[in-house]
Amino acid sequence: MSELLKGFCLHGREKISPWNGRDVTRNTSIVDLEIPQLKEGEILAKTLYTGICGSDNSAALGKANFDWVERPRIIGHEFSAEILELGPGDHGDLKVGDIFTPLAMLGCRDVNCHACRIGKWNLCPRKQIIGFHRNGGFGQQVVLESDRVVTLMEGLSPEQGALVEPLSIIVNALNNKCDIKPGQDIVVTGCGIIGLMAAELARAAGGRVLVTGISRDRDVRLKKAAERGFMTAEVSPENTLTEQLQQGITDSRGVPFGVEGKVDLLIECSGVAAVLTEAIDVVRPEGDICVIATYPTEVPVNATQLTRTSLNMRGSMGSCREDYMIAQKLMVTGIFPSEHYVNRYKFENVKQAFEEAIKAKNIKAVVEMN
Amino acid sequence: MSELLKGFCLHGREKISPWNGRDVTRNTSIVDLEIPQLKEGEILAKTLYTGICGSDNSAALGKANFDWVERPRIIGHEFSAEILELGPGDHGDLKVGDIFTPLAMLGCRDVNCHACRIGKWNLCPRKQIIGFHRNGGFGQQVVLESDRVVTLMEGLSPEQGALVEPLSIIVNALNNKCDIKPGQDIVVTGCGIIGLMAAELARAAGGRVLVTGISRDRDVRLKKAAERGFMTAEVSPENTLTEQLQQGITDSRGVPFGVEGKVDLLIECSGVAAVLTEAIDVVRPEGDICVIATYPTEVPVNATQLTRTSLNMRGSMGSCREDYMIAQKLMVTGIFPSEHYVNRYKFENVKQAFEEAIKAKNIKAVVEMN
Amino acid sequence: MSELLKGFCLHGREKISPWNGRDVTRNTSIVDLEIPQLKEGEILAKTLYTGICGSDNSAALGKANFDWVERPRIIGHEFSAEILELGPGDHGDLKVGDIFTPLAMLGCRDVNCHACRIGKWNLCPRKQIIGFHRNGGFGQQVVLESDRVVTLMEGLSPEQGALVEPLSIIVNALNNKCDIKPGQDIVVTGCGIIGLMAAELARAAGGRVLVTGISRDRDVRLKKAAERGFMTAEVSPENTLTEQLQQGITDSRGVPFGVEGKVDLLIECSGVAAVLTEAIDVVRPEGDICVIATYPTEVPVNATQLTRTSLNMRGSMGSCREDYMIAQKLMVTGIFPSEHYVNRYKFENVKQAFEEAIKAKNIKAVVEMN
Amino acid sequence: MSELLKGFCLHGREKISPWNGRDVTRNTSIVDLEIPQLKEGEILAKTLYTGICGSDNSAALGKANFDWVERPRIIGHEFSAEILELGPGDHGDLKVGDIFTPLAMLGCRDVNCHACRIGKWNLCPRKQIIGFHRNGGFGQQVVLESDRVVTLMEGLSPEQGALVEPLSIIVNALNNKCDIKPGQDIVVTGCGIIGLMAAELARAAGGRVLVTGISRDRDVRLKKAAERGFMTAEVSPENTLTEQLQQGITDSRGVPFGVEGKVDLLIECSGVAAVLTEAIDVVRPEGDICVIATYPTEVPVNATQLTRTSLNMRGSMGSCREDYMIAQKLMVTGIFPSEHYVNRYKFENVKQAFEEAIKAKNIKAVVEMN
Repeated sequence: MSELLKGFCLHGREKISPWNGRDVTRNTSIVDLEIPQLKEGEILAKTLYTGICGSDNSAALGKANFDWVERPRIIGHEFSAEILELGPGDHGDLKVGDIFTPLAMLGCRDVNCHACRIGKWNLCPRKQIIGFHRNGGFGQQVVLESDRVVTLMEGLSPEQGALVEPLSIIVNALNNKCDIKPGQDIVVTGCGIIGLMAAELARAAGGRVLVTGISRDRDVRLKKAAERGFMTAEVSPENTLTEQLQQGITDSRGVPFGVEGKVDLLIECSGVAAVLTEAIDVVRPEGDICVIATYPTEVPVNATQLTRTSLNMRGSMGSCREDYMIAQKLMVTGIFPSEHYVNRYKFENVKQAFEEAIKAKNIKAVVEMN
Repeated sequence: MSELLKGFCLHGREKISPWNGRDVTRNTSIVDLEIPQLKEGEILAKTLYTGICGSDNSAALGKANFDWVERPRIIGHEFSAEILELGPGDHGDLKVGDIFTPLAMLGCRDVNCHACRIGKWNLCPRKQIIGFHRNGGFGQQVVLESDRVVTLMEGLSPEQGALVEPLSIIVNALNNKCDIKPGQDIVVTGCGIIGLMAAELARAAGGRVLVTGISRDRDVRLKKAAERGFMTAEVSPENTLTEQLQQGITDSRGVPFGVEGKVDLLIECSGVAAVLTEAIDVVRPEGDICVIATYPTEVPVNATQLTRTSLNMRGSMGSCREDYMIAQKLMVTGIFPSEHYVNRYKFENVKQAFEEAIKAKNIKAVVEMN
Repeated sequence: MSELLKGFCLHGREKISPWNGRDVTRNTSIVDLEIPQLKEGEILAKTLYTGICGSDNSAALGKANFDWVERPRIIGHEFSAEILELGPGDHGDLKVGDIFTPLAMLGCRDVNCHACRIGKWNLCPRKQIIGFHRNGGFGQQVVLESDRVVTLMEGLSPEQGALVEPLSIIVNALNNKCDIKPGQDIVVTGCGIIGLMAAELARAAGGRVLVTGISRDRDVRLKKAAERGFMTAEVSPENTLTEQLQQGITDSRGVPFGVEGKVDLLIECSGVAAVLTEAIDVVRPEGDICVIATYPTEVPVNATQLTRTSLNMRGSMGSCREDYMIAQKLMVTGIFPSEHYVNRYKFENVKQAFEEAIKAKNIKAVVEMN
Repeated sequence: MSELLKGFCLHGREKISPWNGRDVTRNTSIVDLEIPQLKEGEILAKTLYTGICGSDNSAALGKANFDWVERPRIIGHEFSAEILELGPGDHGDLKVGDIFTPLAMLGCRDVNCHACRIGKWNLCPRKQIIGFHRNGGFGQQVVLESDRVVTLMEGLSPEQGALVEPLSIIVNALNNKCDIKPGQDIVVTGCGIIGLMAAELARAAGGRVLVTGISRDRDVRLKKAAERGFMTAEVSPENTLTEQLQQGITDSRGVPFGVEGKVDLLIECSGVAAVLTEAIDVVRPEGDICVIATYPTEVPVNATQLTRTSLNMRGSMGSCREDYMIAQKLMVTGIFPSEHYVNRYKFENVKQAFEEAIKAKNIKAVVEMN
């Protein structure tokens, strides 16, 4: 039966620009899936829903910061799946039929590894990312280590299961690198799903939130942000965030946003170097910049200004099991309302899902895999 | 004209029990108000709205922890007022007609005082509380130091001005002594206005909140808590919080509250020693107990359990100017919805306001002073 | 050969007072050791050095807070040992001949356990303590789970290996529950080894440290504290710490210790309820009390004072693998100078070691086991 | 008598390179001092000792980041002085003869200024720096606001008084932007006095410290660092810090410094952009970079690496009254041993003091002013 299984696979390394009118998924293809024999500690699972991450797009577009991904590779690290078979070895309480989402990042689990000792596999220098270091969730079946399985919390749907990983990224960033207090003013730069999730959780933590985007985000993503009640700002080189803040932004009650053009916290989710450079000018003394994105180049930083305003620029990478547990609870309790953010695609339309994701025409593309 | 001015004044020290059917305001009276001459740095103001604090009630009931208050004393430290006259000396930008609320606590402002150096007058060992150390907001006019004036933020009504001080108490407690993250489970013990404000801000910070009360809170305060969407629990010696948590409490979506009967944070607002004693049993390892209340007696604490579960028990006292600014912003932006919590009284009914406050028949009594 | 092995074993539950002149080790005996067959994941090790913990003493004295220990039980959770044999199953990189110290506390390691997910087994509600829940380091051989093995860091002697666990307790307390800054004034109450280790690390963190004891600590433990350069205070009901601080204590340069009789931090290591009760009076507003000890009874706490001074009372329990790594580094780099604190005994004198420990006649008793 | 008073004055804006063999103090001159009439709140003081700050050097060299300083200007913001005369208005407890050091940074003290409300004038956007915004400590007399006076703590010499400001910079950085725990490994980049003070306090906080410098630091500043017991590294483009850490550095006991070439914390005190760029490569995941220096240009930062390793880059600016109090205590108690770091000059040799400071031939130049 495995001859019928398919996977969405990354191959070439062509550098693709999404805005020149040509096919943006030229580096990918649908392939027949071969299922390797299970090794000690591995399981076989049927994928249910798999989400498209910005890093999947970047790898598909051949961007420099994803050069390290071996090809061919069936990508996908945000997914829910059902256990079909347990391989040799101990699998704890796991059993066939369990529905789970995997930890995207698997640590080395060596007792000498500081990150692994405290359960933060996302900080392990030798971590392995499913879908990049081994085949992932865009295959209709997947083999993986049972150590990275997180059984879905009662009440969570398999579709929501595919959102646990991206939401957990925001949980990690906000719980460990931001320190939001009710009433603070927060800018989220970038309105992809990571930006929108950051906006939701920053508001859930009590912040007043402004989301920024550019002209091509206007019709879908900034519109969604506005529908969800966030302040929004479309920025451009001619109308920068700095200028808009200086001119004065008010919330729906007419209360000014920021003080003298400065906010408490900026969460950088755009991956555009110039946006991070500008961030230093819009955050108040002793405020924070949380950097979740990565960048194709080095970023010029006005470090003198960083010193003079005692700013903090804090990176945040991935997430760990603890963050997954919190992310699940946030969906089960409705604190993160996943229903507003999912665009569902059939597996046969997986290429369309990628194209629309790359061109900012959807919010969060989730593919029904079987 | 000052011969017409009145004030609500504390005099005797009789110990009064509110539950024996007799007049609970026997220690108070309405008196004619004498306005002293303004000294260097003082101003005269007409009070607008004055709120009743639990500590006002305690002092009026002759409770032991307020023995230190000199009598006669016109009480009241939660109020808004309008400047009528500036006394001698420098008053910065203040001018006649400005509407403000005073800092309840005035620090010694000595450069050798650690608390005063960092602007935390609430921690100054020599702090002076208006309404206790000098006459306060239950006079129709009031004389006070202009250093303690906080001009009301644009958009805030004078009635809201009377809520700034109590809300700032919660701001201090939550911002400095709790560390709430979205998705955490929080119990607020006690459903007076301090408890209800704590519940609102804990939810605004992302918490799921359970409010507790006793039988006499059922009809007004627990009912209000439920109307505002909080989980509620009526507790008694026969049906303790510990037992109710062990038996399992779920939120409106059916999601269990707490894990194995333990929550992340308990905010103690009841002032009942047994409630604080019990708190240690309902908080998870490395969780927090934030103590805002004070107690008529010493509290027996199972310190062995505190050690064994690595709990934190953190007191929080009063508030400072910074907390007042945040409290105002929380009302102006609607994060704290003051309209749900105020019971307004005319000055001629000030005794009734106190009686109903003491008997838990209102939420937050605010008296229109003129 | 196992018929020759011996162990120091806890049996009866007699309540013993150490100060009535009679034998304080009546609840213990030397027994022949039986080595059970190794189960999956277990190893057999030859013990090298085993230290006596205050909790071992308490259990031997039949104190109420150690009633839960099953008897007979070969106690001992602070020890170094050498691997003799690996049982069935996977043991990672461990091999025969490795020298290690065990994690005293073994978590349940369930993925649903918050504490275990983050590697803090000391907070696991189902943790198992070696020497209390299973036979421990006062046997000449010991069987234990390889999951709890911490191989000794290069440069650490087996004798130092026996100090890793107690030092790691202080590491956990100071790194997670205190926030010492250079120049702060710190009182350590109690001058057993836990108190003395706390004093050393508090000073290493930049604090000026005063160690307290009672009259029977004068000749050995307070003397040691003074030799090590700490300020010391012998306290009694007639000459309390509060009074001594109020009267004024100065350091060796004549610089006053504390401000107006208050210090920044108090670390409670005495286990005497009255000492913890008094702590609230000697810590400055917003200061900390770190509680490492446990108590035979509930402790009366002036919670009103705790609120009014915004104090923090923070429990700290045990330690985890990360703390063990730091404790080892502190010894290897000489930051904790273990050579000043060890009293070495031969195994044949193990009873004497206990007696002298209980009677405060040594500092840290460490028994050479083979 | 004022016609006899002199001051060291900044005038031209020539860009000077210190390494081309010519006079580096061409932008300065000794001038006759005119004492303006005292205004409300001002005092006149006789300067005692004045230190040379790196920013004084930068301004004298005409560096771009000090273009904003008006000229002519008598510089100097690190000094001790004795009050000669109190001007009109209230001066609290100050009296003629008091010896003090001024707060270098004076906030706007407006109640609407967040920074000023919490006593952190160093964060005030409108702060005024003595010696840059008004004449400072390199005049033999100085006029200043009594609000910025910090009376010297008992036991502190006037010479030490001139060190309070620079030491307070480190206090602010270490207490608010670092989180040093005993046993951590810390690199201080740059061995000027700010770097050396950072090294002393980082060690006082329990860190193992490596100080870096370049070839011209070898004979004086790195030598001093080594004499004081720090590890040192002379770095160059051919022998970078990254390479030296990768090759392995050990402390005096032979214990490796860092783990896999990474340390816990790097404190950037060099002001060289390339050093800050490199910092990201030598700090462990979730480690900290504290930036105290400022830079002539923007700094290229590998922000992708910052994200991927969850690093924190935290600026730290100036200091406030609270930091001054702590800095004084650190000297009085001997935690910071000032005697090792001062090079004293007579006022007639003030130009020599500047030249030697700029050329790294002294450690901390302090000028006896009268």
